[in-house]
Amino acid sequence: MERHFDEELKELNKQLLRMSAFVEEAISRSVKALVERKDDLAREVIKHEEKINILELEIDELCLRLLALYQPEAIDLRFITSVMKINSDLERVADQAVNIAERAQEIIKQPLLKPLIDIPRMAMLAQKMVKDSIDSLVNKDETLARDVCKRDDEVDNLNDQIFRELLTYMMQDPKAVTRAIELILVGRHLERIADHATNIAEDVIYFLKGKTIKHHIED
Amino acid sequence: MERHFDEELKELNKQLLRMSAFVEEAISRSVKALVERKDDLAREVIKHEEKINILELEIDELCLRLLALYQPEAIDLRFITSVMKINSDLERVADQAVNIAERAQEIIKQPLLKPLIDIPRMAMLAQKMVKDSIDSLVNKDETLARDVCKRDDEVDNLNDQIFRELLTYMMQDPKAVTRAIELILVGRHLERIADHATNIAEDVIYFLKGKTIKHHIED
Repeated sequence: MERHFDEELKELNKQLLRMSAFVEEAISRSVKALVERKDDLAREVIKHEEKINILELEIDELCLRLLALYQPEAIDLRFITSVMKINSDLERVADQAVNIAERAQEIIKQPLLKPLIDIPRMAMLAQKMVKDSIDSLVNKDETLARDVCKRDDEVDNLNDQIFRELLTYMMQDPKAVTRAIELILVGRHLERIADHATNIAEDVIYFLKGKTIKHHIED
Repeated sequence: MERHFDEELKELNKQLLRMSAFVEEAISRSVKALVERKDDLAREVIKHEEKINILELEIDELCLRLLALYQPEAIDLRFITSVMKINSDLERVADQAVNIAERAQEIIKQPLLKPLIDIPRMAMLAQKMVKDSIDSLVNKDETLARDVCKRDDEVDNLNDQIFRELLTYMMQDPKAVTRAIELILVGRHLERIADHATNIAEDVIYFLKGKTIKHHIED
């Protein structure tokens, strides 16, 4: 029984890593579609969503089965319930990538408003946060999880910067308004991806320490 | 043991209803702060967030305790893990209400751009969706949960309408841009509240039917 449980936990880890890889790919592809103005890439992200949704459900079912079959205690119980929440966050990150892909499809129909520099940078930061948050869980690395939480401010600042710059474009030229707003929305989707990564990292710390740093109650 | 478990489940239901009531109040207050231009009301919403965060943690701990102590099976297991997810969604609804309160504080510093009609309507719809999603869980009412899911489109359409109207304001007058964007963001926060309510309703149906309607796989 014990050995079976350990093997199933390993399987759960593997599935979660697979989910994370899919989600990271969705982020990078959606931003690539925007930057390189490739509609086919955007369509791929949207098509791929179904696969991610199905994997989310499979992971959820696996967690429920582990809880029901083995009735785990203490750290194992916390691990599995944490995975259920983290899994749900990963799926929402994929939703945001789909939103970016949809924005990309609109944006590339029109002439370029400005060269995109900050948005790809922000995307790289957000994607790395997602990857590191999952790595921190799998490797039980509390330091890495705390580092992810800290990086959230960096992404927020970059988003504010993008927002303010686009605001000046809109004020100078009413014809720029729709295109600027599309880019502002991309910035917000990326910001939300970073928020989800932060939620995941907080859940990892909660799992590792058995206490919560959510909502900065610790401070 | 059995009776203790039933009593603790009742306590969990009660706590969740309390959480929902706090969150619904946060929504209605944040929108009232915006419409009636009351900064003190906005500040109250922001101050209240801490109470909601603490209640989220208490409910989470209670769920973990129930899982560890009673090792529930089948429907009870699914109920408790569903509550853990729903609880997390409710806290994120409260985050959105805080975002609206913060936007309200900025908006009321400047002259009114236009009379607010659609935003309060959208807020009422979104708040009702949150209430009904929790009621559908507590009363095990699948019809109500399905109804909540359907109402999501109504809120999305209203949000699109608000967005398009504000776009015309921005194109006509560059000085209106910042104020219009603040209102667009309020619309998006309300849309996200409706999304969370939909997530909750989907979790309720999953709990009641033991199958998922998430991602429209059912269709």
